[in-house]
Amino acid sequence: RRYTIAVIPGDGIGKEVVPEGVRVLECAAALYGFTVEQRWHDFASCDYYARHGRMMPEDWKERIGSPDAIFFGAVGWPETVPDHISLWGSLLQFRREYDQYVNLRPARLLPGVPSPLAGREPGSIDFWIVRENTEGEYSSVGGHMFAGTDREVVIQETVMTRFGVDRVLRYAFDLANRRPNRHLTSATKSNGIAITMPFWDQRVEAMAARYPDVRWDKYHIDILTAQFVLNPDRFDVVVASNLFGDILSDLGPACTGTIGVAPSGNINPDGTHPSLFEPVHGSAPDIAGKGIANPVGQIWSAAMMLDHLGETAAAAAIMAAIETVLKEPGLRTADLKGKAGTEACGKAIAEALR
Amino acid sequence: RRYTIAVIPGDGIGKEVVPEGVRVLECAAALYGFTVEQRWHDFASCDYYARHGRMMPEDWKERIGSPDAIFFGAVGWPETVPDHISLWGSLLQFRREYDQYVNLRPARLLPGVPSPLAGREPGSIDFWIVRENTEGEYSSVGGHMFAGTDREVVIQETVMTRFGVDRVLRYAFDLANRRPNRHLTSATKSNGIAITMPFWDQRVEAMAARYPDVRWDKYHIDILTAQFVLNPDRFDVVVASNLFGDILSDLGPACTGTIGVAPSGNINPDGTHPSLFEPVHGSAPDIAGKGIANPVGQIWSAAMMLDHLGETAAAAAIMAAIETVLKEPGLRTADLKGKAGTEACGKAIAEALR
Ligand SMILES: CC(C)[C@H](C(=O)O)[C@@H](O)C(=O)O
Ligand SMILES: CC(C)[C@H](C(=O)O)[C@@H](O)C(=O)O
Repeated sequence: RRYTIAVIPGDGIGKEVVPEGVRVLECAAALYGFTVEQRWHDFASCDYYARHGRMMPEDWKERIGSPDAIFFGAVGWPETVPDHISLWGSLLQFRREYDQYVNLRPARLLPGVPSPLAGREPGSIDFWIVRENTEGEYSSVGGHMFAGTDREVVIQETVMTRFGVDRVLRYAFDLANRRPNRHLTSATKSNGIAITMPFWDQRVEAMAARYPDVRWDKYHIDILTAQFVLNPDRFDVVVASNLFGDILSDLGPACTGTIGVAPSGNINPDGTHPSLFEPVHGSAPDIAGKGIANPVGQIWSAAMMLDHLGETAAAAAIMAAIETVLKEPGLRTADLKGKAGTEACGKAIAEALR
Repeated sequence: RRYTIAVIPGDGIGKEVVPEGVRVLECAAALYGFTVEQRWHDFASCDYYARHGRMMPEDWKERIGSPDAIFFGAVGWPETVPDHISLWGSLLQFRREYDQYVNLRPARLLPGVPSPLAGREPGSIDFWIVRENTEGEYSSVGGHMFAGTDREVVIQETVMTRFGVDRVLRYAFDLANRRPNRHLTSATKSNGIAITMPFWDQRVEAMAARYPDVRWDKYHIDILTAQFVLNPDRFDVVVASNLFGDILSDLGPACTGTIGVAPSGNINPDGTHPSLFEPVHGSAPDIAGKGIANPVGQIWSAAMMLDHLGETAAAAAIMAAIETVLKEPGLRTADLKGKAGTEACGKAIAEALR
């Protein structure tokens, strides 16, 4: 088995953690008998923007070609490029142009990562957040009138389609159907957002009818965030619109300790375009360049990528190696009250894998 | 001093906790030398809907008249009336028609209310959430096309005005300016919601320039929810749009233990219309009619109302009485692992006040 992987480190700590992810990937390849062909790209970064006045070359799709997946670090350097420009010009382009309509993130309490919640043990929180990743509240439709005057008004449209909603719901119900608990929770706000969210609810109900074995419920987003804190052990698969999923997939990992270790997949389940795997943490300008960033989110993203490619044994082995290393304060990074730097932690995980 | 108060119990546990709020209000009036004239209304409830086919009479404004404030329980009975109908037909009408453009909610960790967060002591979490309450993401503008077909699409517009944003920011900065820490946090999502949220950020920056003594920062809503869980002691005043404020003002109280005790004010700071005070918990159909609902959120709402009316000593005394009672398991309700019912808990608070 041979996989072509586009490697895009991006900005900030992305450039420090991606090499550790690649190290572990190479190590898994050697052990499990597959080959990874790496193709590195320097675009989708604010450095690239500084040199070219745009986040990516016009022919970025040709340059990327048809890899089996994209291994992504982080993008954003607000000191030089405003976030809405750097993100819309890179990450959000990939999600849309490659139709990565599922954003998948685990909330799982691992050993060695203390939860901010009282009395929760490793294993007691373990669920997936399935976020719609291409439409909804993240739209560029709308406008600005009477700028600079007292009657200034801005309008932004949330757009949901049956096509877009149904396919992410199908993915989420399928996932729930494969899990032992077969439980799905939908995030809504149909009591306040009176047009799009009742529509979301209707589609959930219609899809649920096709999955008689999946128990399902729905919560308004406000009380759902409260439930993540009060009863995180209740959840199995949580499905949400683009914005609600964005919120829940930072909050979920925070409840399991730190977003510094959380991975994510931007998945095109139909296989018509490559999927993209990236840690949740972002470019973290405040700690960039110091060699102290936690590489676990990036390495866990490598495991998710291998799982997606069908290398399930290698993926499980990486997860086990991560858990082994997280238990050792000497091998963890400083954000987890450990003593290791980025590289030492990455090397330890590769070592544990062997 | 004489205050006319419109009393609207609404649905579910609203009908059980409002009488306890009124009990404590009357008790405070007697002790602090003012008079409360109560005017009870049965509309803004699903019972009313069942009888009249609408949530409120057409002439609800005339019936309410010009009270000094509205003391509200909770609305919603989804078994008979869908939430978006019951809420848009009542609570959201008040907020808009009475231009209650500030929704103010405390997140404060009280004694006797165990926090789900590890190692947090009473007093260590104490901040206010200021939510825009009339515009933004809660709009009824938009539409539905191609219903029932594969190309079905729904559109909903978020509308923000300079007028609407500036006035809630001014309220929030004023509040921060009166607090010892003088710290304000703005909730944004300008990296993803690319039209309205950059506008929000601009207005925050412009307003901040007028408050040189207030330190301020901003977080994207996703990471902000994570920060509520990881570092709730960092916050002092948090200002947010309608939807983000809705989420944060359930999450904040959840981090301080239970939304069962949280109060809120829907405030018209200009005094052109009455303000409305209500607990955060809602109608809670699952426990309604059992006499076990926690009345603290309603009673704390009475304290906020008195504070708003200028009866600050009475308001502080009610808060002290609440704290005294919460320390006693025999006087707390079952949701706080106590033994008292709704009425016993309310009576105990009135007693402590005396
Ligand atoms: C019931 C609902 C419409 C309401 C809201 O979203 O504003 C509630 O959640 C609140 O926060 O008061
Ligand atoms: C950086 C930002 C645009 C992005 C998002 O909101 O989608 C990020 O928060 C994420 O969740 O991947």
